[in-house]
Amino acid sequence: MTQPTSHDSVRAVQWQGDQLRLLDQRCLPGEERWVTCRDAESVHAAIADLVVRGAPAIGIAAAWAVVLAARAGQDMDAILQRLRSARPTAVNLMWALDRMRGRIAAGDTPAALEREAQAIQEEDLAANRKMGHLGAALIEPGSGVLTHCNTGSLATAGYGTALGVIRAGVAEGRITSVFAGETRPWLQGARLTLWELVRDGIPACLIADSAAAHLMKSGQVQWVVIGADRIAANGDTANKIGSYQLSIVARHHGVKFMVVAPCSTVDMATPDGDAIDIEMRNPEELLSFSGKRTVVEGADAWNPVFDVTPAMLIDVIVTERGVVKNPNAKRMQNVFGTA
Amino acid sequence: MTQPTSHDSVRAVQWQGDQLRLLDQRCLPGEERWVTCRDAESVHAAIADLVVRGAPAIGIAAAWAVVLAARAGQDMDAILQRLRSARPTAVNLMWALDRMRGRIAAGDTPAALEREAQAIQEEDLAANRKMGHLGAALIEPGSGVLTHCNTGSLATAGYGTALGVIRAGVAEGRITSVFAGETRPWLQGARLTLWELVRDGIPACLIADSAAAHLMKSGQVQWVVIGADRIAANGDTANKIGSYQLSIVARHHGVKFMVVAPCSTVDMATPDGDAIDIEMRNPEELLSFSGKRTVVEGADAWNPVFDVTPAMLIDVIVTERGVVKNPNAKRMQNVFGTA
Repeated sequence: MTQPTSHDSVRAVQWQGDQLRLLDQRCLPGEERWVTCRDAESVHAAIADLVVRGAPAIGIAAAWAVVLAARAGQDMDAILQRLRSARPTAVNLMWALDRMRGRIAAGDTPAALEREAQAIQEEDLAANRKMGHLGAALIEPGSGVLTHCNTGSLATAGYGTALGVIRAGVAEGRITSVFAGETRPWLQGARLTLWELVRDGIPACLIADSAAAHLMKSGQVQWVVIGADRIAANGDTANKIGSYQLSIVARHHGVKFMVVAPCSTVDMATPDGDAIDIEMRNPEELLSFSGKRTVVEGADAWNPVFDVTPAMLIDVIVTERGVVKNPNAKRMQNVFGTA
Repeated sequence: MTQPTSHDSVRAVQWQGDQLRLLDQRCLPGEERWVTCRDAESVHAAIADLVVRGAPAIGIAAAWAVVLAARAGQDMDAILQRLRSARPTAVNLMWALDRMRGRIAAGDTPAALEREAQAIQEEDLAANRKMGHLGAALIEPGSGVLTHCNTGSLATAGYGTALGVIRAGVAEGRITSVFAGETRPWLQGARLTLWELVRDGIPACLIADSAAAHLMKSGQVQWVVIGADRIAANGDTANKIGSYQLSIVARHHGVKFMVVAPCSTVDMATPDGDAIDIEMRNPEELLSFSGKRTVVEGADAWNPVFDVTPAMLIDVIVTERGVVKNPNAKRMQNVFGTA
């Protein structure tokens, strides 16, 4: 067993003055390999190929890509356009690029852009700690929680969104058991969330994604706690495929459903979930495993990697600006209307 | 692409006069390897280790194990006891052993027991064809269906239960698209169902188990069609883990839910789902893939391989004796009370 370390020790996105180091999440937990990006194009590739994933981490990496491009004197409009195309669903990518674009328009030097990217990264970490405490406070002592995908240090600047709430809830004694869905096809839950939890010394139990309803019926979980890739103006939430399914079975069992994400994930310009672009990825992600074909040749696969949980199935959205219980357009407007 | 063959060409359980040949389902679709069993103990191992799986196929294999034991002059009480222990949830195993026990008690010779095992196998094939037509008749032309696990020729004497309905429905033009959940952790859907469908030339599309709700929301499926490992007297149905979850999300979307199983799967001695023993398997099935560890050391997993779908979430149970719509104890009693 890996020796437990401090609760937010992993920093998967590291700026090193003139280059960006990314912990290659495709290789975990078997190997801790780092990828070094010296230009914006290699950051684009790292985002598209899932070297770095998780909505907040994608945004942070893109901000550093802008810094690399500015230092190289590249055409910034073209770079911003190119980076936006890396992945369509997580709005944090667009948010970070828009923020950097604003600084470029204001005439910032590369050094000033570097400070802006640093601020984006530091603000995300601070937001995660704030959300951790806000979310944990909603959970009754002695609760079991189920999470999906990876929303921890690997997916953010550190600590995590949903996993930050779980870290805080465990530290405060509110959460006494943690279950994680393996999260097919990419196994972010199995590979990444369990890796983080074991490093932290938090006992955690993996389940097949399709065992969630049976787990809930057994009475072992009181909350589902997940992250988000985009939250629309009415509270509809795009997140990893399977989140919508969990929200339905949670409601069926009276299990509460919490979405945890920084304000940078809230997209008030998107009215509802129907307007969110859901990324379809290569069917090969389902047809093969670790490069080995598991399905007969001639078979096809349907591989949407996100889905939309409607606001009506969400009990609470937690952000660093506050919590929105029973979210709808009006309640979202009250908190985020002046963003 | 494998050349399409006849719609029920695979015979995964083959009696050869003095030995039993089993298509090793752990190796599909990569390799068509056969395991030869010359005594009852090796059949027990084949059932426990998933060389042969699927409730009806397990029952048939166990009947042949009894024949092997009788020919070897073994202690039949001990053998029957031993075989019952191979897997706990599928009642077809107990049903086939009880049927063979009855013939032993009646003083049958090994040759007569051989005829009984042959009858069990042939009756299962006939039941599947009957159920195929009964089930398909309930499906509106132009429908899409989603299935789970493998319920085809590999899981039965041939043709299949839920997959038999799908084969009949496709042949009759009622079913125009077929989706299969990959069925973690053992990937019976990905490895076995797609293999059967591609062999039959039936276009089929694999999905992650957790994509089912998103698929239903897209309007591409009108029915979920699954098999069963045990159906209780009130219609509650034990089947592969994930079936219960599918029943909840199907009801949420107005998608119909059909259970297809021979009468040998109906257990009128079990009052309801709470009385069904749910098999827990080795956590390693979730922690590793193809012998390669995918989860960090120190992590645990919870691996129930079946769950129970309550009768109230089932629209229809199809057996060779007839269909039970909106199943409950009274309607089940009407059809199976005189079993």
